[in-house]
Amino acid sequence: MAVTNTTGLEDLLSEWHQLPKEERFGWFRGLPRNLREDLFLDLSSYEQSELVLAMPPHEQRTWMRVLAPDDAADLIQQVEDEDQRKALLDRLDETNRRDVQALLAYAEDDAGGLMSPRFARLRPDMTVDHAITYLRLQGRQMETVYYCYVLDNEQRLLGVVSFRELFASEGSKRIDQIMERDVVSVLEDTDQEEVARVIGTHKLLAVPVVDTEGRVKGIVTVDDVVDVVQEEASEDIQKMGAVSALEVSYMETSFWEMIRRRVGWLSVLFLGQLLTATAMDHYEDEIARAVVLVVFLPLIISSGGNSGSQASTLVIRAMALGEIKLRDWTRILLRELPSGLTLGVVLAVLGFVRILVWEWMGMSYGEYYYLIGGTLALSLVGVVLFGTVTGAMLPLALRALRLDPATASAPFVATLADVMGVIIYFSMASVLLRGTLL
Amino acid sequence: MAVTNTTGLEDLLSEWHQLPKEERFGWFRGLPRNLREDLFLDLSSYEQSELVLAMPPHEQRTWMRVLAPDDAADLIQQVEDEDQRKALLDRLDETNRRDVQALLAYAEDDAGGLMSPRFARLRPDMTVDHAITYLRLQGRQMETVYYCYVLDNEQRLLGVVSFRELFASEGSKRIDQIMERDVVSVLEDTDQEEVARVIGTHKLLAVPVVDTEGRVKGIVTVDDVVDVVQEEASEDIQKMGAVSALEVSYMETSFWEMIRRRVGWLSVLFLGQLLTATAMDHYEDEIARAVVLVVFLPLIISSGGNSGSQASTLVIRAMALGEIKLRDWTRILLRELPSGLTLGVVLAVLGFVRILVWEWMGMSYGEYYYLIGGTLALSLVGVVLFGTVTGAMLPLALRALRLDPATASAPFVATLADVMGVIIYFSMASVLLRGTLL
Repeated sequence: MAVTNTTGLEDLLSEWHQLPKEERFGWFRGLPRNLREDLFLDLSSYEQSELVLAMPPHEQRTWMRVLAPDDAADLIQQVEDEDQRKALLDRLDETNRRDVQALLAYAEDDAGGLMSPRFARLRPDMTVDHAITYLRLQGRQMETVYYCYVLDNEQRLLGVVSFRELFASEGSKRIDQIMERDVVSVLEDTDQEEVARVIGTHKLLAVPVVDTEGRVKGIVTVDDVVDVVQEEASEDIQKMGAVSALEVSYMETSFWEMIRRRVGWLSVLFLGQLLTATAMDHYEDEIARAVVLVVFLPLIISSGGNSGSQASTLVIRAMALGEIKLRDWTRILLRELPSGLTLGVVLAVLGFVRILVWEWMGMSYGEYYYLIGGTLALSLVGVVLFGTVTGAMLPLALRALRLDPATASAPFVATLADVMGVIIYFSMASVLLRGTLL
Repeated sequence: MAVTNTTGLEDLLSEWHQLPKEERFGWFRGLPRNLREDLFLDLSSYEQSELVLAMPPHEQRTWMRVLAPDDAADLIQQVEDEDQRKALLDRLDETNRRDVQALLAYAEDDAGGLMSPRFARLRPDMTVDHAITYLRLQGRQMETVYYCYVLDNEQRLLGVVSFRELFASEGSKRIDQIMERDVVSVLEDTDQEEVARVIGTHKLLAVPVVDTEGRVKGIVTVDDVVDVVQEEASEDIQKMGAVSALEVSYMETSFWEMIRRRVGWLSVLFLGQLLTATAMDHYEDEIARAVVLVVFLPLIISSGGNSGSQASTLVIRAMALGEIKLRDWTRILLRELPSGLTLGVVLAVLGFVRILVWEWMGMSYGEYYYLIGGTLALSLVGVVLFGTVTGAMLPLALRALRLDPATASAPFVATLADVMGVIIYFSMASVLLRGTLL
């Protein structure tokens, strides 16, 4: 049967990933040519670069030429050694080299770094029949023929014709009669996350990249954007988990690289936590007099941390998806204040009930158990409210400072909530328990 | 100038989101027709359904017919009321209704629920010239013309021809001479996350959906998959932050719905944290004798939580991207054991230095400060090691139990690490400080 359910290639890829790096090239060479090509095209740019660098020059030439210019540029961008980059560029033929060099001038994360210079161009005064014949001649030169861009003599964008439109139109009509003039485009230095958002919102298959004069420099296709979306989501997820974003996959990251990406934030958060120790130092007397208070301390501080994580997670993701903007901060605050209060009250009730249940079960916290319960309950309201509001506002504050809102926000909020939890709890205790336990 | 940098429509969308729900329909009606159509197509299925339900029947008819069958099916899937669903179906014309009904039979999250039944079909014995003329006749019937699928008489998939290939080929060649026979396809019940991964890995613009007999039922295009990728990433991020995944955007979610999505996990984690209180109860004597120990308790338990979050974040994301599989668990364990140990030693050194610095600054923890420092340091190694290993293994365990690994993993690990932190710390103290402070 002609249909393969992807399994062959999937298995190959998985086998590739299991191999130690130094054995991969030998194994790759042993595959039949058509499998090698399929596998090569499915690898990430980083893996492609490793493979190509392991090859002798004449094989490098072959494999570099298999790639489209934007993919070749991506591969070269993965190589750190300047001489090796130059050598790989030299393996390309003249036209390709020029295209790739132009692409390398852009930052990797910009629309310019994502785009392909190969797209279908038409002139406004062509007829539909003429356009179709013309496109058939251009043939293999094009990255995508789903949209044809209509340009004037200075390469400025006049409009766009989808292939479906072109096909469905009468042969004698002129392109400028059928083209759509309202074209969504992005600039060369538009950030890739924004490019992904534009393509996603408008459900496009490709978006043209123009310079400030409106001249088309290339197109970004939606398949490039799927990678971007995954990459950006990984970055956010990792940062929210207090890990510096990995450059390559989990398994490809070396042991020490992995430690380096984790130890920084872990130490920063540890140093932040030393503040809780300092705060606790202040309450040593209270603790000595009412040890029972300490029993609930971890509960208090982690409730603040958990509610803070929830709020910051929601706000960070909504910002990444463009659902909320910086200017919405008052509306968010007005939502999160009552949310924090409500959630705090729920936990306070649970906490108070726990004290009562223990009391009924005979494991008493002493005659003032109801005061301890009250301290616990009120502190929970305070700390959950604080965690929720801080969790919602911190990502917005980071964005206002032009920092990435995802950066370790959740654990950061948890640390703040810990310190604040200690302060709220013991302050509450010194008010409520004065004259009884304290 | 003909080029608009997306701003017009972006502003409209943002204005739409700012409006209270009950004012949206009136505002929408006031827009010029072409803007209304652009805006409508850019809305999420949920927003489209709200808008359409607010319309009188004859307008519903118009707007339902603007949508492609897969989008119409998505809209109807958002409507909960059975009568309203039926009414909306009735607004479609005969052919469309049949297509939409067929799509509604699939689960929303499956390939079948994502696919469009409109794709370009060719027969293997057509010539290229004939195929192009034929496609021009089909015209507007097609969702995408980037790939043309070659089918036999029973609708079974024989191969695929890209448009670029078709265009670049000689007019007299037969389709079966130029088609690619190794076609990547997915099954009707393939999960949408897997569909996204297949499209992403193979850098496809569309993938055909076949039944178990190899008959093509439709295609999933990459633009549908961008939404899926974003959706799945949001779900993972929210679950990792201990929030049940939101169905609609942050701002669209009502206050009580938002509380509902947060209070469940927050309470579960709170109940989990009650274990720390129970654990602490056991150590009340030790605490009373050495109050100084309590000062470092928040530090200990949050270090375990943070290192656990890091490990679980890394493993969950790597699993979501298909970088690691369940069967890799021993390799992951063998990486995370030394990672946890190294990270623990780093924090232990920082903690010990903190004690020494305080000592030098004259804020003494008493004559046994080095023993307290030792207890702190060794406990940190233990708790970070525990957090790291648990954080890495818990998502794999959840997957093995066929649960979603992302579900509240990070806060769950933090809670486990808290309880374990209390136990490790006080056990360590009772060994090291016996005969001195305890």
